[in-house]
Amino acid sequence: MVGAGAIGSLFAGHLGRKTEVWILTRRDEHARALRTGGLRVSGKAEFVAQVMATADPKGLPVFDLAIVCTKATDLDEAMARLGGLAPEAVIMTTQNGLGAEDIVRRHGSWPVISAVTFMSGTRHSDSHVEYELDAPTWLGPWEHGPSRETVMAVSDLLVDAGLRAQAMDDVRPAQWSKLIFNATVNSISALTELPHDHHFREEGELWGLGNLVRKLMEEGRAVARGAGMPLYEDPWEMNLHAVRRGETDGGAYGHNPSMLDDVLARRPTEVDFITGQLVQAGIRHGVEVPLHLAMYQLVKAKESTWVPCPPDGRAADVDS
Amino acid sequence: MVGAGAIGSLFAGHLGRKTEVWILTRRDEHARALRTGGLRVSGKAEFVAQVMATADPKGLPVFDLAIVCTKATDLDEAMARLGGLAPEAVIMTTQNGLGAEDIVRRHGSWPVISAVTFMSGTRHSDSHVEYELDAPTWLGPWEHGPSRETVMAVSDLLVDAGLRAQAMDDVRPAQWSKLIFNATVNSISALTELPHDHHFREEGELWGLGNLVRKLMEEGRAVARGAGMPLYEDPWEMNLHAVRRGETDGGAYGHNPSMLDDVLARRPTEVDFITGQLVQAGIRHGVEVPLHLAMYQLVKAKESTWVPCPPDGRAADVDS
Repeated sequence: MVGAGAIGSLFAGHLGRKTEVWILTRRDEHARALRTGGLRVSGKAEFVAQVMATADPKGLPVFDLAIVCTKATDLDEAMARLGGLAPEAVIMTTQNGLGAEDIVRRHGSWPVISAVTFMSGTRHSDSHVEYELDAPTWLGPWEHGPSRETVMAVSDLLVDAGLRAQAMDDVRPAQWSKLIFNATVNSISALTELPHDHHFREEGELWGLGNLVRKLMEEGRAVARGAGMPLYEDPWEMNLHAVRRGETDGGAYGHNPSMLDDVLARRPTEVDFITGQLVQAGIRHGVEVPLHLAMYQLVKAKESTWVPCPPDGRAADVDS
Repeated sequence: MVGAGAIGSLFAGHLGRKTEVWILTRRDEHARALRTGGLRVSGKAEFVAQVMATADPKGLPVFDLAIVCTKATDLDEAMARLGGLAPEAVIMTTQNGLGAEDIVRRHGSWPVISAVTFMSGTRHSDSHVEYELDAPTWLGPWEHGPSRETVMAVSDLLVDAGLRAQAMDDVRPAQWSKLIFNATVNSISALTELPHDHHFREEGELWGLGNLVRKLMEEGRAVARGAGMPLYEDPWEMNLHAVRRGETDGGAYGHNPSMLDDVLARRPTEVDFITGQLVQAGIRHGVEVPLHLAMYQLVKAKESTWVPCPPDGRAADVDS
């Protein structure tokens, strides 16, 4: 497991009950806490898993599968640390947006599984994660990826460990559904600082935010069509579903989109990998995306207050 | 003077040196502070003016001219307090956006002077305002307004008091220039929480905020054309000028657009009167304004966190 934020900890904790799991952390103390106390999962599941952990890539044994769970903004640096290790391994990406697989490919010739996950949780400490939303992870081979059997084996392993997972021949339609959903909901939330709540479905009045959600999703669909990409799920239905879920859970489930969490914590957001990638795809396929471009410019401007270096165009380079 | 925020205090202080000025405040203690200590102006001018002040409209003498300097959001309530008073008086509006004159007309048959001011200042206390930007105020008769001579007399009075002012036959081209400027700069600033700084002219990269400024201003120009309204100044030049001025003043002049100040203080913004009015004008004249509509929806959603009542459509009613 590369990276043990909320998602990485959920994968590692569950898998740690079924197989040998090593977690590559950035900080020594994080690895030490995991080694000594194990990894506690609470919420939708309750257990403590024994895991191995190190902050030094040289300390890792040869591995069969690396699940990379860093934020998209940290992926390039994380993959640089894995460069040259375990050439027979399969790498599974889980990042939001588009382009993670290409970043992995820059650092090695491992076959890549691309995953889209909808599960969510809150990381309470280095060794405790709360499992909040037990939604599925979809996974499929990326380009010259591993065989269908290998993808199925990974999916089975996740299910066996207590997670929801589904193998697909082509995960891109699911990835694009989530891309359009995230480019819309995350950027609106980052700018308004609203959680993903009832505002996002309100269409009755001119100022209703649901009208903007619809239009952003329409632009996203047009880009998908231009790219010849079918969608696995309807992004508007995903929106309604997520808002309803937040209401049902009555606040127990903190439904801040991750980009809002980044804004509130003054961290770099994933906007280059989400909205930025959608805008780039629009440009590439000759599809106008004026609203997503505006959202991109607004979020980039907003985060410029706390992102110290000028935007570096990494996301823009992914497909060039 | 109705309302003594920064702009009202600047008008009242200057005029108080030349003529009898009464300030109608909302709070008793504000009126008391003004009556006892006078109104101090610092910055571009330095003096203390003697002014009369009351929080009770019944305490006002019959007046010749009322300059209404409340925020657009407070105008309706303020004019209700003046209802029935001084039927021979002239009322001068100074609010941002469009629609202030119509709100005044709901409360009496006074002739109306419509003013657009570019001066700015900071209110340090109930009786101290700092005069920061000594920019002009443009004024003209509104519809069946007062005679040209009356408007000239008011303009001369302002100049005589040490302010910059210019009478015009039709102030609407100036009002629309400021409307397009404000709808663009204020809403971007409210969402990104950036002051009006160099970001607003950056066009070199895809994410440059200057690109969005240009597009919002183009939409605004299209609405003005649809409404048959010439512009007095080029909004993009106003943008460059204001950014340069902020840089020259090196931070001594805090160039937060008023909508950002409202956002940071969690006050209702004037978005209904600025962007909302521009969007309504677009709809009325059959001009598409997708970007301004998006900005409107985003700012309305953002302020919904601290504006306790649901949006009340006041701005939308102005022209109905």
